[in-house]
Amino acid sequence: MRPTITAFKTSPDRGRGLARDMAVRWALEEVGQPYDTRLVTFAEMKAPAHLALQPFGQIPTYQDGDLVLFESAAIVLHVAERHPGVLLPVEPDARARAIAWMFAAVATMQPPIVELGMAALVERDKPWFEARQPLLEQAARVRLDQLSARLGEADWLDGPFSAGDLVMVTVLRRLGASGVLDAYPTLTAYIARAEARPAFQRAFAAQRAVFEAAAG
Amino acid sequence: MRPTITAFKTSPDRGRGLARDMAVRWALEEVGQPYDTRLVTFAEMKAPAHLALQPFGQIPTYQDGDLVLFESAAIVLHVAERHPGVLLPVEPDARARAIAWMFAAVATMQPPIVELGMAALVERDKPWFEARQPLLEQAARVRLDQLSARLGEADWLDGPFSAGDLVMVTVLRRLGASGVLDAYPTLTAYIARAEARPAFQRAFAAQRAVFEAAAG
Repeated sequence: MRPTITAFKTSPDRGRGLARDMAVRWALEEVGQPYDTRLVTFAEMKAPAHLALQPFGQIPTYQDGDLVLFESAAIVLHVAERHPGVLLPVEPDARARAIAWMFAAVATMQPPIVELGMAALVERDKPWFEARQPLLEQAARVRLDQLSARLGEADWLDGPFSAGDLVMVTVLRRLGASGVLDAYPTLTAYIARAEARPAFQRAFAAQRAVFEAAAG
Repeated sequence: MRPTITAFKTSPDRGRGLARDMAVRWALEEVGQPYDTRLVTFAEMKAPAHLALQPFGQIPTYQDGDLVLFESAAIVLHVAERHPGVLLPVEPDARARAIAWMFAAVATMQPPIVELGMAALVERDKPWFEARQPLLEQAARVRLDQLSARLGEADWLDGPFSAGDLVMVTVLRRLGASGVLDAYPTLTAYIARAEARPAFQRAFAAQRAVFEAAAG
């Protein structure tokens, strides 16, 4: 059975692989699981049929037989669990630590990173934008400092590449155009190592093809 | 072997059970796992010995033999996995959906809730506070509307009470004093059902005892 995921018909990231289907595509490529993609418009995402699959009106969803899942990190974890030893270590303690990095990525690293990016998008014309932006950057830097210190000279966060790295790199890539990562050579190299993986490249090409087809 | 968790020596929540050790204590009580608590000061949390356990200088941590974990939801998941059928269904699809709700709680519901609360704490004297606060409330309400619609008349998010409900309720409780939940009787009743669980009550009493001992 091939799972089906949903993705933006017209992604607001303009093909840069920053939408949340990217993590799921990447995980599916890492484990070698072929999949189908169903594209949805913004209007479709807010309609009852999609809300039945995804209560927050977002992409991606994941459908495999009777199973419907949402939340990209949860889908990555499910895909990883179906292929033990690929994206999650088999040894129980190492497996638990890899999952902890998945949660750290979305619960601790992601909020200041998304807030920084969203403010630049939606608060740019507010009178407080100039005064707040340095505070937001500083909040993101606190977490980047800590993550960089923990990664140190290692290639990956805890042993071999894992679903923890996959989700963490997906989150960090959202800083792409901001320049904030320029001060973090350790993290820039970490992201580059991840992006060099053949599975990342295939996933990136797949989402890019959707953007190019829509751009016509 | 009894696991050891860390918690604030002097919790900024003044004993209201809003610090992140609460979710872990609650999960341990639900599965009937006794545990020890090691209290840390704010200075200790930022020191190298704690950063070796928790790279972001936070509580809680979880130590059990050689295993060291951080991120409260990851610890809840680990505890749940060690006791199949209590906080996670045994049936694989239902288990995957419960885990998806854990991620939804920390990745989708939590950011606007924490941002609303943090702004009230740290931006109260900023010139933009009054203008921004309604925007933050609105962002939280979008997610609360969607969660409330999904929960509907059900007692819990997906079948019996699960780790997904435990983490979701922990996140929603942070809205406690804000009044935002007053417009959501469905969610208020959901939280009340969870708080009535004996395991929640024991966990709440345990963290409350720490606060009262510190208050002397």
